[in-house]
Amino acid sequence: MIEHKFADDAAIIAFVRRHTRLFTDDAELIVSEIGDGNINFVYRVAEPGGASVIVKQALPYVRIIGEAWPLSLDRNRIEAEALVLEAEHAGEWVPEVYHYEQPLAAIIMEDVGDHQNLRHALIARRNLPQLAEHLGLFMARTLFYSSDMHLDAHQKKDLVKRFINPDLCKITEDLFFLDPFCDHERNAINPPLRPAVEALWRDDLLKVEVAELKYAFLNRAEALLHGDLHSGSIFVTETSTQVIDPEFAYFGPIGFDIGSLIGNLLLNWCGQHQLAGEAGEREAWRDWLLVQLEQLWHHFSREFSRLMRDETTDLSLQNEHWQQRRLLQIWHDSLGFAGTEMIRRTIGLAHVADLESIEDATQRAQAEAMALHLGRELIMDRTRINSMEALVDLICQLND
Amino acid sequence: MIEHKFADDAAIIAFVRRHTRLFTDDAELIVSEIGDGNINFVYRVAEPGGASVIVKQALPYVRIIGEAWPLSLDRNRIEAEALVLEAEHAGEWVPEVYHYEQPLAAIIMEDVGDHQNLRHALIARRNLPQLAEHLGLFMARTLFYSSDMHLDAHQKKDLVKRFINPDLCKITEDLFFLDPFCDHERNAINPPLRPAVEALWRDDLLKVEVAELKYAFLNRAEALLHGDLHSGSIFVTETSTQVIDPEFAYFGPIGFDIGSLIGNLLLNWCGQHQLAGEAGEREAWRDWLLVQLEQLWHHFSREFSRLMRDETTDLSLQNEHWQQRRLLQIWHDSLGFAGTEMIRRTIGLAHVADLESIEDATQRAQAEAMALHLGRELIMDRTRINSMEALVDLICQLND
Repeated sequence: MIEHKFADDAAIIAFVRRHTRLFTDDAELIVSEIGDGNINFVYRVAEPGGASVIVKQALPYVRIIGEAWPLSLDRNRIEAEALVLEAEHAGEWVPEVYHYEQPLAAIIMEDVGDHQNLRHALIARRNLPQLAEHLGLFMARTLFYSSDMHLDAHQKKDLVKRFINPDLCKITEDLFFLDPFCDHERNAINPPLRPAVEALWRDDLLKVEVAELKYAFLNRAEALLHGDLHSGSIFVTETSTQVIDPEFAYFGPIGFDIGSLIGNLLLNWCGQHQLAGEAGEREAWRDWLLVQLEQLWHHFSREFSRLMRDETTDLSLQNEHWQQRRLLQIWHDSLGFAGTEMIRRTIGLAHVADLESIEDATQRAQAEAMALHLGRELIMDRTRINSMEALVDLICQLND
Repeated sequence: MIEHKFADDAAIIAFVRRHTRLFTDDAELIVSEIGDGNINFVYRVAEPGGASVIVKQALPYVRIIGEAWPLSLDRNRIEAEALVLEAEHAGEWVPEVYHYEQPLAAIIMEDVGDHQNLRHALIARRNLPQLAEHLGLFMARTLFYSSDMHLDAHQKKDLVKRFINPDLCKITEDLFFLDPFCDHERNAINPPLRPAVEALWRDDLLKVEVAELKYAFLNRAEALLHGDLHSGSIFVTETSTQVIDPEFAYFGPIGFDIGSLIGNLLLNWCGQHQLAGEAGEREAWRDWLLVQLEQLWHHFSREFSRLMRDETTDLSLQNEHWQQRRLLQIWHDSLGFAGTEMIRRTIGLAHVADLESIEDATQRAQAEAMALHLGRELIMDRTRINSMEALVDLICQLND
């Protein structure tokens, strides 16, 4: 029995009434559990036809597994603090935090329930004309403003300390960088793909590069990352984008967030090779995805460069040539981390619907082989892919 | 009035008696203030002809400047904890901590007063047959055992948090990476050297590389560094080496400690061009210094490689090729940081006796110009100097 867990709906409603002023006293509120996540309890508290809020509560273990997989409640504080910090410079794209209560490990926040999960939207090939711009700006601003380029030496180190996040980092360290590159029991492998996976496990050159990326993930406290920026952490409409769930936030390499996102767009690109629908429609969609990739980097890099130029406060880092080099390093890192995301989502513990929705195992294996192959290329060649054009060429070769 | 400051000698003696058992009850103890450092108060408490200990107390400002330069007392905790951690794997080469008392910001530790300060020993050209081996092993062990290669994910992050050290890091960030590369009021420049210094300030390519090194210092939490490993932090006899004063300790790039030490050996090499003594004796000593450089790297790299091979616990990092690459990166980083140490000690706030003891300003400027030039080369060419032979060649060209 976990003492801080809400006993019933009435307790949740009382908590929301105590800490928000969104509902009138006589409003009849309804609680529904909506969490499709694996880790926490998530509730919507709504007045039918009226306002609503989300309550997210953490328990000291992984929800779908139970007490056998303990997980620090501190992740809930980190999520609340990350949302608040992100909102300082990118408030348009994150839900507002109304209240955080540490003893309950619970956050009350804005309900973005009128938005669709980006992963489902991508699988459904939904038109999202502003997605790339929103996400490019979101990343540029959250990452720049939490870096040493902008923060003073004391602020930065104080934040690094507040966002030390060992439990959730350990999940990434294992699931991204360890499991997929050895025969680990946590892996889940589609049988027709097995020969390709075994070849990967014997690929020592690849493991050198993965070790390099893991070392960067472990050591480079460049900026406050979202830390779990896959399609499932993003909610969208045609005109709005909301980035949720930063409980993996910590200070890490800037390319990790960008790479997670690029990897997820490319996983959808691979999946669309075999997903349901007309071939013509699927191919047009895949072309659209590549345009989004270009646009994402275009918006990120233009904004990040502007911020480096205009808002770098550290005098030593106010150097145009160094800033250009920094941007290129971020690009290379992003490609590498995109590769690890693609591989771990294809053969590791946590798969993605972009591939899993392909019902036929052989067809699915074709798309998965594409993801594995592209993931490996991105990791191995990341420092030789020096432009978006070179990246798109590499991707398009997979179609041949 | 700082409340925790020892009121008088009797208070220091009482503190030592309370927390050690080195002295008999009737021993007559004598206190002498021995600090030649700039920051703290350091006392020796001794029984004439008998045992002795060192008491180091921090006040919340820089000792030689006063309350105008405040400095966190936390540096004293960091020093005590760093000494204890270093002693776990390199106890032969650090003084033992007998007691640390946080409210007093005071450490009682082993007295290494029978040793000589390494800077003075190098200036005096004293034979130190075991120095390079001791320091190579000290660095290999303290740095490896505090890295992600050895520590588990939680331990490492817990230590990173404990050693967040903003006040003292800021001193390094400014004095190493900012001041010497612009016309800063904290700089101290020997007038004949001024044209060379002004050329340095106009050298934009150099500033790009210095920004890169500063960014590494700010972001790469690879291992628990000593953080201030210059010749003045090391005490020696022919058979013993003691590394003291780790109050700048924090998790940073491994090459920073090694580079500080290399830089200090090379500062002495430059100074010996003009220091007092027979030319033949000085040249023989300079050759000996280059042998020490080789030996230092030889012992460091052999031990560090052995530890990586035999004691890396992180499965992803148990990869021979990655470990070789890591060692090469450490070498390149070390050269770059050696360059910044040489430059900042020549034209920045804190000069070194290896150069300052040259009385004639013109002769001193010759040695200083050598240090500036070599420092710049090390920074600019660090990734192209791929062996110790290449480094020694570069150094010897300065004599031509």
